[in-house]
Amino acid sequence: MRLPDWGRSPVVTELARPLPRDGQVLVRVEAVGLCRSDLHVIDADRGTMPFRPPFTLGHEVAGRITAHGPAAAVTVGRRVVIHGPWGCGSCLRCTQGRDNYCDRRAELSWAGMGLGLDGGMAEYVLVPSARHLVPIGDLDAGEAAPLTDAGLTSYHAVAGIRPRLGADSTVAVIGVGGLGHLAVQMLRALTPCRVIAVDVREEALALAERSGAHLSTKATTDTSRVLRATTSGTGVDAVLDFVGSRSTLDLGTRGLRADGDLVLVGSGGGELTVRKPGSLPPGSRISLPFWGSRDELADVVALSRSGALKVEAERFPLTAVHEAMSALRDGRLSGRAVLVPG
Amino acid sequence: MRLPDWGRSPVVTELARPLPRDGQVLVRVEAVGLCRSDLHVIDADRGTMPFRPPFTLGHEVAGRITAHGPAAAVTVGRRVVIHGPWGCGSCLRCTQGRDNYCDRRAELSWAGMGLGLDGGMAEYVLVPSARHLVPIGDLDAGEAAPLTDAGLTSYHAVAGIRPRLGADSTVAVIGVGGLGHLAVQMLRALTPCRVIAVDVREEALALAERSGAHLSTKATTDTSRVLRATTSGTGVDAVLDFVGSRSTLDLGTRGLRADGDLVLVGSGGGELTVRKPGSLPPGSRISLPFWGSRDELADVVALSRSGALKVEAERFPLTAVHEAMSALRDGRLSGRAVLVPG
Amino acid sequence: MRLPDWGRSPVVTELARPLPRDGQVLVRVEAVGLCRSDLHVIDADRGTMPFRPPFTLGHEVAGRITAHGPAAAVTVGRRVVIHGPWGCGSCLRCTQGRDNYCDRRAELSWAGMGLGLDGGMAEYVLVPSARHLVPIGDLDAGEAAPLTDAGLTSYHAVAGIRPRLGADSTVAVIGVGGLGHLAVQMLRALTPCRVIAVDVREEALALAERSGAHLSTKATTDTSRVLRATTSGTGVDAVLDFVGSRSTLDLGTRGLRADGDLVLVGSGGGELTVRKPGSLPPGSRISLPFWGSRDELADVVALSRSGALKVEAERFPLTAVHEAMSALRDGRLSGRAVLVPG
Amino acid sequence: MRLPDWGRSPVVTELARPLPRDGQVLVRVEAVGLCRSDLHVIDADRGTMPFRPPFTLGHEVAGRITAHGPAAAVTVGRRVVIHGPWGCGSCLRCTQGRDNYCDRRAELSWAGMGLGLDGGMAEYVLVPSARHLVPIGDLDAGEAAPLTDAGLTSYHAVAGIRPRLGADSTVAVIGVGGLGHLAVQMLRALTPCRVIAVDVREEALALAERSGAHLSTKATTDTSRVLRATTSGTGVDAVLDFVGSRSTLDLGTRGLRADGDLVLVGSGGGELTVRKPGSLPPGSRISLPFWGSRDELADVVALSRSGALKVEAERFPLTAVHEAMSALRDGRLSGRAVLVPG
Repeated sequence: MRLPDWGRSPVVTELARPLPRDGQVLVRVEAVGLCRSDLHVIDADRGTMPFRPPFTLGHEVAGRITAHGPAAAVTVGRRVVIHGPWGCGSCLRCTQGRDNYCDRRAELSWAGMGLGLDGGMAEYVLVPSARHLVPIGDLDAGEAAPLTDAGLTSYHAVAGIRPRLGADSTVAVIGVGGLGHLAVQMLRALTPCRVIAVDVREEALALAERSGAHLSTKATTDTSRVLRATTSGTGVDAVLDFVGSRSTLDLGTRGLRADGDLVLVGSGGGELTVRKPGSLPPGSRISLPFWGSRDELADVVALSRSGALKVEAERFPLTAVHEAMSALRDGRLSGRAVLVPG
Repeated sequence: MRLPDWGRSPVVTELARPLPRDGQVLVRVEAVGLCRSDLHVIDADRGTMPFRPPFTLGHEVAGRITAHGPAAAVTVGRRVVIHGPWGCGSCLRCTQGRDNYCDRRAELSWAGMGLGLDGGMAEYVLVPSARHLVPIGDLDAGEAAPLTDAGLTSYHAVAGIRPRLGADSTVAVIGVGGLGHLAVQMLRALTPCRVIAVDVREEALALAERSGAHLSTKATTDTSRVLRATTSGTGVDAVLDFVGSRSTLDLGTRGLRADGDLVLVGSGGGELTVRKPGSLPPGSRISLPFWGSRDELADVVALSRSGALKVEAERFPLTAVHEAMSALRDGRLSGRAVLVPG
Repeated sequence: MRLPDWGRSPVVTELARPLPRDGQVLVRVEAVGLCRSDLHVIDADRGTMPFRPPFTLGHEVAGRITAHGPAAAVTVGRRVVIHGPWGCGSCLRCTQGRDNYCDRRAELSWAGMGLGLDGGMAEYVLVPSARHLVPIGDLDAGEAAPLTDAGLTSYHAVAGIRPRLGADSTVAVIGVGGLGHLAVQMLRALTPCRVIAVDVREEALALAERSGAHLSTKATTDTSRVLRATTSGTGVDAVLDFVGSRSTLDLGTRGLRADGDLVLVGSGGGELTVRKPGSLPPGSRISLPFWGSRDELADVVALSRSGALKVEAERFPLTAVHEAMSALRDGRLSGRAVLVPG
Repeated sequence: MRLPDWGRSPVVTELARPLPRDGQVLVRVEAVGLCRSDLHVIDADRGTMPFRPPFTLGHEVAGRITAHGPAAAVTVGRRVVIHGPWGCGSCLRCTQGRDNYCDRRAELSWAGMGLGLDGGMAEYVLVPSARHLVPIGDLDAGEAAPLTDAGLTSYHAVAGIRPRLGADSTVAVIGVGGLGHLAVQMLRALTPCRVIAVDVREEALALAERSGAHLSTKATTDTSRVLRATTSGTGVDAVLDFVGSRSTLDLGTRGLRADGDLVLVGSGGGELTVRKPGSLPPGSRISLPFWGSRDELADVVALSRSGALKVEAERFPLTAVHEAMSALRDGRLSGRAVLVPG
């Protein structure tokens, strides 16, 4: 499933199976997640992305190692997920598996697997180095694939605020889709805080409740009052905004407690103006986490294997990718979409 | 030295010495710092501040306990500094000495000592509770007074990023005045990071060097390139912006490394627009720390007594406060201004 | 219920209701926990404890404020638990509510409430300062009282290792009684780690399972092999030993992973010999936490109110204290014993 | 310089230069440190060490990459130090560079480079994988080699207590030799705490003062009183014991503050008995750190390159190893011994 050029639809293309060289590893794809950022890429105008077509889409991959180059110390047959934000591979951060914050990102012509380099909406994906692989044992592939972005991005966002969350803390999760429902579960598994979920869609609120939210509330112009009312007027200790629109940022800003955290994950086009003194409570912290590290992905896989994490996903055959995209665009999905080749 | 009303100059006024009741403590002022935020208050238009005149100015006080109410367990004669951001006194944060993030701030008609309530530009100041006092032993009063805001605010700003600063980290301190020169010293005493100081004034750069900055550089339109050049192109791990103008925020944004911290301390009127994707590097954190906690003030006093902190301040008699204000306004001060009563 | 002298049984004694002076607070006892350390005190030989009879026993108290001295800023009628490890009250640690590590402990003739000073096995208890009180709202008194020692000691022990516990960590809780069953619940609420409970008593293993342990195993000479077998041979990341006997310390030592934590809570008379190189894995940490801080007690109360903590306790009228003591001595209690006056 | 068998002296032996295969890297040795643990190995009785001769000694190596196998992505000519505690290479900890706490250590027939496997007291050393290498730029080899054990072990010991050290903390460093003098410098560079150095040798006290200790005191039977006297009676917040004899452990135990850290680094044959209640203050933590991680070694190199760390070492030609050993045995060295081949 390749993006041939900017402004064109992705098309199924027949390619030769790649031959892994040096330290490369070939993974047969068992499942690949579909992500809102795939839509951003497909819809992008020429020149707005730091990479160029053609390339195969797909950055959420679970599969099985089928071959490798002579310098890759891996075992054929082992099942893995792939850490996707491939960086330069040589800066200190990359050697620590923190490719998401690669120090040479600006010099690269790709942003990761399926983002300028060939990704996993295919039968096989060629991984540049074994360091990108995390073993998953017998975890179901459809459960595992979304861990690599929906899971990892949520986990990294939660990890940034986790040390400050106690039993008397309240966190608002805005937007309970593919990422948000996992964030709710992680907050419940990793912290004793109270979780309030906010969304405009009824089915998202139901998903939030299944995921363990203590309270779920429909987003209206009055929601910041709800956040204050449920916190004795103080506002919430943290907001995880998985939407990032003007209205959610406004809600987050107005519902936040002094010394609180506003974590902006979604790229919904909203803007936030920071000024001092200004509209943010004193002591506010705003963060813009991006994806996550390889070690964090290993944590997410361990969380999933422990049973603490349950991905809700709808499965589609890889050939039904256009149908899956439409469902995602129209907000008709509950949780994540996962494509299964073959 | 009271502010009689919005739009009027502060005037020397004769008042009766207050009688401490209940848990109150009377402190004879030995020194009181003058702060840029005093100027903001004096210059403020009616309705722009969350408190109202008349009140005595002065929120950076060192002095000696001379009397106390029956419920205050303090010792007359002991020398102290005063933790200034007096809050409601009853929320959990206030009981922990975190009045700077008081949960009832919005309901209060003051922002702290000398900010709606009578402060320390006077012979005596009446402190509502012994919990605001930190003993200083025989520390010089002119050294001690600026620790309570210039020192504490800098310390709190540094404390927020300190766990992420290693020997290969670089921090840019923008604005090396009363706060900035202490931040440089704290970064040197508390972390192994490299410190780059930025200012437009030559004497501020000299002060930065005396304070231990590894490099000091004059702010120009090219400074973000300097920040990148001295960090092998990655940008700095953290920016402490003690100015907060449009140009310093722009510098901070452009000189920052991925996964870096932009700490906005100064209220220089600048604005920063946060958007995703946008002009900030991935993983950026922006924080707006305000003053600091009582426990942090105790840390700052300990740092000062250990010799790790050296406040540069010009001293004026309390009656020369207008002269000191002019010097501060005109950028003619090196470091802090301290007023000495009597 | 007073201990008249070393070597004598506690007896019910009629005393005048104390009059609170200065900052003192009088609390009417609604429930008071009975603790194994009460038995240690009752059984102690003259000269082995850092305090002396006579005094009223009881250091786990929940109740209601009924009166206070003029300097205590509290509200009559409010329900509270009491932070018991009263220290000197004037060292920095005491002012932070860390009386459990009071810097002048060696100079004091008491170890806390009910430990040299009159405690809560009575209708009323006189609390020296409002700083020892934590509000509990409408929490049931029988649930709340054990939070102050069984809960707080467990929480403080867990807090010391919590930052190192991830989804792939395993913790062994040895001894699932009044403290251990709360530790299991806290590990589940606060961390994603796997919890293995160890005890010699079948009913304790059942309590462990009700408390959320992933696995519970009867203590035998082979248990260290069980710990290794369930961790792919590595050993457990942490051991919380609530017994502290020779055999549990031996088990903890042999079942521990390199870079692991052995947390010794119980005073069961066992000894551990530390030598390098020696019988402990490389990187081991051994800690001897004692009780906990006031802020931690507030966390525990919040955890309980959130529903994450469920104290299992048997209730006795205060007059049946000797019967409760016998049940505790004989290991016939499941969970904690709580005495209810009146 | 090979150890031919237990009970025999190391001898110079001519071997063929190894050929690196697969991911192996060949490093030409520029300097190799001599360590007290080398003496422990040479003096060991058969069966007391987890590895066997013959092998080349030397686990503190700085040098230059001269060749590598086809699967090693390194650059010939680059100068490096070698992270020495080689583990299994495949457990999660090893893949994170935490070989010092390798989960399969018990199954291995070596403890690291020069400890069962051929080390660096040679012209060349064969490194099993590029992951053990940390670049040093143009750092002097004699400065760099001791960073890998003396530096790294000290750093790892300091890192374990660093988050708890503030400006009002006091740390006692016992034993100011090759490790201790670096620990003193690290405490000064990384924390604002006060450092007290203790040693029996006058020249070690002088070295402590050159390294930045605030106070240095000769070890006598009265030293625990000195530790208490200089801390207003509370005892020190942490003890770093680089000797580990019976008398230093006794000193550490008696001079420690409640809630303090006793870090046992030295293997001087002393024993510490842990009991509850017992001879240790409440809240004590005892830790037995071993060497350090690859990432920590990178931190140490960065500290050294920043100028914050100055290794004091005496240099000997590699052929004078026996003379160096005698000097070390007799306590005639100030700081570290470094051997230079060729």
